[in-house]
Amino acid sequence: MQLSKRIGRLSPSPIREILKSASKPEVISFAGGLPSSESFPKIEPARVSRDVLQYGASEGEAALRERIAEDLRHRGLSVAPEQVLILSGSQQGIDLVSKLVVDIGTRVAVEAPTYLAALQVFSLFGAQYVTYNADDLSRLRVEHRPQLIYTIPTFQNPTGHCYSAVQRKALAACADELDCVLFEDDPYRDLVYTECERTPVCSFIERSSWVYQSSFSKTFAPGLRLGYLVCSEDLYDKLVWLKQAADLHSNRLSQRLVLDMLARYQSERLQRIVESYRDKRDQFQYVLEQTMAPYATWAEPAGGLFFWLTLNSKVTIDVDRLLQQALKRNVLFMPGTPFFTEQQTRQYLRLNFSHATREKMEKGLSVLAQLIADTSGDVLVAPR
Amino acid sequence: MQLSKRIGRLSPSPIREILKSASKPEVISFAGGLPSSESFPKIEPARVSRDVLQYGASEGEAALRERIAEDLRHRGLSVAPEQVLILSGSQQGIDLVSKLVVDIGTRVAVEAPTYLAALQVFSLFGAQYVTYNADDLSRLRVEHRPQLIYTIPTFQNPTGHCYSAVQRKALAACADELDCVLFEDDPYRDLVYTECERTPVCSFIERSSWVYQSSFSKTFAPGLRLGYLVCSEDLYDKLVWLKQAADLHSNRLSQRLVLDMLARYQSERLQRIVESYRDKRDQFQYVLEQTMAPYATWAEPAGGLFFWLTLNSKVTIDVDRLLQQALKRNVLFMPGTPFFTEQQTRQYLRLNFSHATREKMEKGLSVLAQLIADTSGDVLVAPR
Repeated sequence: MQLSKRIGRLSPSPIREILKSASKPEVISFAGGLPSSESFPKIEPARVSRDVLQYGASEGEAALRERIAEDLRHRGLSVAPEQVLILSGSQQGIDLVSKLVVDIGTRVAVEAPTYLAALQVFSLFGAQYVTYNADDLSRLRVEHRPQLIYTIPTFQNPTGHCYSAVQRKALAACADELDCVLFEDDPYRDLVYTECERTPVCSFIERSSWVYQSSFSKTFAPGLRLGYLVCSEDLYDKLVWLKQAADLHSNRLSQRLVLDMLARYQSERLQRIVESYRDKRDQFQYVLEQTMAPYATWAEPAGGLFFWLTLNSKVTIDVDRLLQQALKRNVLFMPGTPFFTEQQTRQYLRLNFSHATREKMEKGLSVLAQLIADTSGDVLVAPR
Repeated sequence: MQLSKRIGRLSPSPIREILKSASKPEVISFAGGLPSSESFPKIEPARVSRDVLQYGASEGEAALRERIAEDLRHRGLSVAPEQVLILSGSQQGIDLVSKLVVDIGTRVAVEAPTYLAALQVFSLFGAQYVTYNADDLSRLRVEHRPQLIYTIPTFQNPTGHCYSAVQRKALAACADELDCVLFEDDPYRDLVYTECERTPVCSFIERSSWVYQSSFSKTFAPGLRLGYLVCSEDLYDKLVWLKQAADLHSNRLSQRLVLDMLARYQSERLQRIVESYRDKRDQFQYVLEQTMAPYATWAEPAGGLFFWLTLNSKVTIDVDRLLQQALKRNVLFMPGTPFFTEQQTRQYLRLNFSHATREKMEKGLSVLAQLIADTSGDVLVAPR
């Protein structure tokens, strides 16, 4: 039996594998980007008519596309409903855009680190990575000349970094100059705790092709698997055809439930979620200071769902081994390694703060700090 | 801007494009494989707990996987729940299996005709087609030696043909001999109106790798986009990783709704659906005889959702032009052309019988017959 060559480039998603352990109730998980289950809306399917059970349009439900286009115009991205394509979660957008652009050897520009499940898909299709830094795009423009730029400018995954207006405009200008496809992934935008620039990079593009995508997983419910993309007009039909080939169309019941909620009470709901997550972030920051300060540095994120920790050079335990030991103590986190396209000398951890209760935060972070202390010979530190 | 080479092989799904016109109430559609909306179950989401709103397992909900494995054992296919992968509709299975096996130039064996949306995906990944005939696999075994065999042995789409036990065993033996991947697509199996052999081809395989998939679209509700695959153990992990990369996991609300319905009342429901579709098939057969007998031949299908008509050689109108003219009269059907990998000299129509009411059947088929009569100079025939 002969499988495709791309299977040689296939790897499991480290995060999905780690999350398998997260379903046990005794586990404290800082691993996934799991929204707090308290944030979930009520399912009110009584409000949904049975016509959604029939096959639907590949592009998505018309009313939902209109609503999304309207919301995007408020965000500064001027699009028509006809440019909106509903997705079965924004992971699907990465699959479709990869199919659209990435052949073996296609140069794909990513930040280091970046979202690991995007790397998983780009690699599957044969991407050759070049990395960029939002503060200096000169190598990208002159030397690397990628065909695709992948960016998460707002509360980046995993770092939490939010691009300034200058960085956004520079990246858009760079895409225009290169005539490549700019792919902006924006799932965390609405989870903002400290005001900062959030205008889509794509809104600054003048000539280049672009795809902007977002998700309802973080502000509504991931189990419904619903996201969307909008794109420059030249790409739209091709992305719809790729969507047809991938799964015909997205779940119509989910589309109606999300539309109903957006129409009725999304702004108050979102405000409640943001307030609750801001509290969680502040709590996490406090507990981090109490436990991890001797071993790591981090910046408090202005939004999103993660803290990104850089371990001090004196920490001798390898982060992957730390995970193995933490797992035995029922604590999960994401090691930084798979967020990079190349081996790193420094060590990183990505910690989700939205899912665990305050009590579990304290317990879980103490376990991590203790495990590090045990191997650092740093007996002076007594984590709470 | 440079897109991937595969985009040069991308085409829109003819059926999805044609179905766009089907949403107008005045249209009589024989085009899609649309189940009758009367067959849809009630949505009872009150029975669904909110925990389905969180991220879930890529493999699918454990209880649903168990139930599917149990049902498959009754069908003669002995599998463990651990071999079941829940899909976002069975179109997704075609995408995943293509990613698993198909590179540019990979030899993929298909029947002529076969399901057009499978051809769309295989072509996207660069398949080189060889065709086979279930009665004579010698060229397949000796000359073509494909890496993938795609088959719809039960109520084939579009022909409605159902393989005999001899044909099933021969195809399985052929796959064993070639050591290729046998991909069995079985969405129509439960829609049986005249008893016939339906044991999965995969159950006869001894050594070769295989994937068997089916769908809840035809017996439950297509708008929920839910299907599943089972496969030989050597392929399972890779297909799960491909599923992760494609959309993380399938809609959990749909999975619970389907499981609830399977557990509570699927067998009575299915019996009702089958009886109603059998009536529809018989009605369609009757109306076809009244209208299309002078222009076409067909075999009454033992199951599934379609009649496959071969136009007589005296019919001079091109089937694609016939569709254009029928569209003006608000009648839709699927021309046979896109179901083939090569240009045909004979002309075919695929007609769905499950969606239209009796009245619309009569009106729509009369329109088709009249359009053919008008161009055939065959003034003696007066369709009802």
